[in-house]
Amino acid sequence: MADTKDIKPRTLMGPGPSDVNPRVLEAMARPTIGHLDGQFLEILNDIRDMLQAIFQTKNKLTLAVSGTGSAGMETCVVNLIEPGDKMLVCVNGVFGKRMTDVAERAGAEVATIDVPWGRVFTAEQVERAMKRSGPFKVVGIVHAETSTGAAQPIEPISRVVHEAGALLLVDTVTSLGGMEVDVDGWQIDACYSGTQKCLSCPPGLAPVSFSSAAEEVLSNRKTKVRSWYLDMNMVRKYWGSERLYHHTAPINMNYALHEALRIVLEEGLEPRWKRHLAQHRALKAGLEEMGISYIADPAHQLPMLNAVMAPDGVDEAVVRKRLLSDYAIEIGGGLGDFKGKAWRIGLMGESATERHVNAVLTALKEVLAQT
Amino acid sequence: MADTKDIKPRTLMGPGPSDVNPRVLEAMARPTIGHLDGQFLEILNDIRDMLQAIFQTKNKLTLAVSGTGSAGMETCVVNLIEPGDKMLVCVNGVFGKRMTDVAERAGAEVATIDVPWGRVFTAEQVERAMKRSGPFKVVGIVHAETSTGAAQPIEPISRVVHEAGALLLVDTVTSLGGMEVDVDGWQIDACYSGTQKCLSCPPGLAPVSFSSAAEEVLSNRKTKVRSWYLDMNMVRKYWGSERLYHHTAPINMNYALHEALRIVLEEGLEPRWKRHLAQHRALKAGLEEMGISYIADPAHQLPMLNAVMAPDGVDEAVVRKRLLSDYAIEIGGGLGDFKGKAWRIGLMGESATERHVNAVLTALKEVLAQT
Repeated sequence: MADTKDIKPRTLMGPGPSDVNPRVLEAMARPTIGHLDGQFLEILNDIRDMLQAIFQTKNKLTLAVSGTGSAGMETCVVNLIEPGDKMLVCVNGVFGKRMTDVAERAGAEVATIDVPWGRVFTAEQVERAMKRSGPFKVVGIVHAETSTGAAQPIEPISRVVHEAGALLLVDTVTSLGGMEVDVDGWQIDACYSGTQKCLSCPPGLAPVSFSSAAEEVLSNRKTKVRSWYLDMNMVRKYWGSERLYHHTAPINMNYALHEALRIVLEEGLEPRWKRHLAQHRALKAGLEEMGISYIADPAHQLPMLNAVMAPDGVDEAVVRKRLLSDYAIEIGGGLGDFKGKAWRIGLMGESATERHVNAVLTALKEVLAQT
Repeated sequence: MADTKDIKPRTLMGPGPSDVNPRVLEAMARPTIGHLDGQFLEILNDIRDMLQAIFQTKNKLTLAVSGTGSAGMETCVVNLIEPGDKMLVCVNGVFGKRMTDVAERAGAEVATIDVPWGRVFTAEQVERAMKRSGPFKVVGIVHAETSTGAAQPIEPISRVVHEAGALLLVDTVTSLGGMEVDVDGWQIDACYSGTQKCLSCPPGLAPVSFSSAAEEVLSNRKTKVRSWYLDMNMVRKYWGSERLYHHTAPINMNYALHEALRIVLEEGLEPRWKRHLAQHRALKAGLEEMGISYIADPAHQLPMLNAVMAPDGVDEAVVRKRLLSDYAIEIGGGLGDFKGKAWRIGLMGESATERHVNAVLTALKEVLAQT
């Protein structure tokens, strides 16, 4: 039998979870109280307010879903989609593919457009796809594709999506808190994130936000949302002033998120984005010096997720294992098309520091020299 | 802005969460590590083994779903039901009603049988309903109805359900860890629980277990499970030896559950059930002395959930508020049919002690004397 006392700490530089500030762990260990206790409801109100600030939105329906980032994806999809609704999903990596699967399960008639993994979509490509096989109720796209490290510009996509009268659904799991996400400015109708990436909170909750247009769609549904647990028509009555019991909120996870969001806002959004970018540049320079190249199109490289090709002849899994066992540094392996061929080095939240960049570069150099 | 540092502790005697042992809170605050880290996978293996012991089952597919108890309910339903499948739900309170809703959303053709809230079902009633409108693929029933305090005997129901060739799905959210739950002995095919009741862990995970018959149904589905997030065909490949990435598990919540389950097994199942029963008897004697009567049929009274009628002329909400503000004791109000009329006093896990019983009786006496 293992004992959690004996868990050896790691330096978390994979695709999430990222390093967690001790303040967040302390907050998580505060006494559990009831989910209808006034003290807890105040915590929820704060979380909503802080998420609005970080999503840069006035959306009333902004809250933390009681599940991980993938539950956030499912929440956005199942609440907007009724069986037979048409949805277009832009696929350039694992998470676009996942969104397709989630949408089909929700009963959507799904069309997809694809670009090679590592590339991003142009507005023209999305516009053509909408003309070819539309009209669509919802268009889904991934802002920060965690499997490839590609950063998708959202604003131009949003323009063509709204011109065509569709709702825009955006995956901001990996981007939120580490680069600009401007929900109102970019007119995003529904988006979701995770806690364990650039917010540097343990995994377990999924921040989501729905625009007033999306809320109206939700209010006017003809069928019930396919998931009872994720039904925003009910969940919003608990987070809202009615405080109607739906399910028991994960109390201590919300304590942790509360503290993590405070830390984000203490630093400030712009300084935080700049920090991520600066550390990404330092890491990139170091990796390129070692002859290691990035997967994503250089013009659209995420700062917080560095997906790079393992050098020829190197067993990427062996290197990752050595980094973990000898240096206590966790980095990620490739996903999907890049399984067995790539590394994913995260610089997320608390893990986006000079110390982290130096540690991973040094360790990687040493391990590669011995391989 | 609230600060979690300032949260005033409560004595938790509502319908959950219950008081949490400091060991569990400490475990939850251990350093976050990766969801594919060997150290974490060992924790998951232990959780599976300990859940098997507490559910009293050899079921391989036994794990903690990454959501609260209601996500556990949805997991069991959506994985067993394909659109058009017939399901019978036994309704004698809020949670039976909820199961009906969840099953309809999953595409089931749902039939229900009802007995008055507070009563339980006989095998004959279930048998008649199955003959009248069956055959059914799944029969769902609540072991411990948290809204009424009624304890449903499962064994006789199981016999008739299996004779009719159906699968038995049981809600053990409130019972697990506080009274006997014998998954193999009672031949339960799917059951779910929550962490924040008699396991005395913060809310956030849902233990589930599926029999080999249920696993076979799962393996032979013709359609995909409607929920991607809760799809056991994928989740079991992460908990199983394949360790395939599905979603990022809530790391620190699983630390907490690991420690909570250890505490349950250190005490031992039978002594723990006896402790719950003894404290229930003490509470009941005290309440009856005050002229307060129980909702549930006396022959089928849950030890850990004491749903009682507020005395005539007493505003139950005012009393609850006084208990919380002046005594820092949380008890629950009535749900559904009993809203505004009843109290629900929990004696769950760490909250099932003589100290708790005395505290709530004393406080209640004082508050009622002043009302």
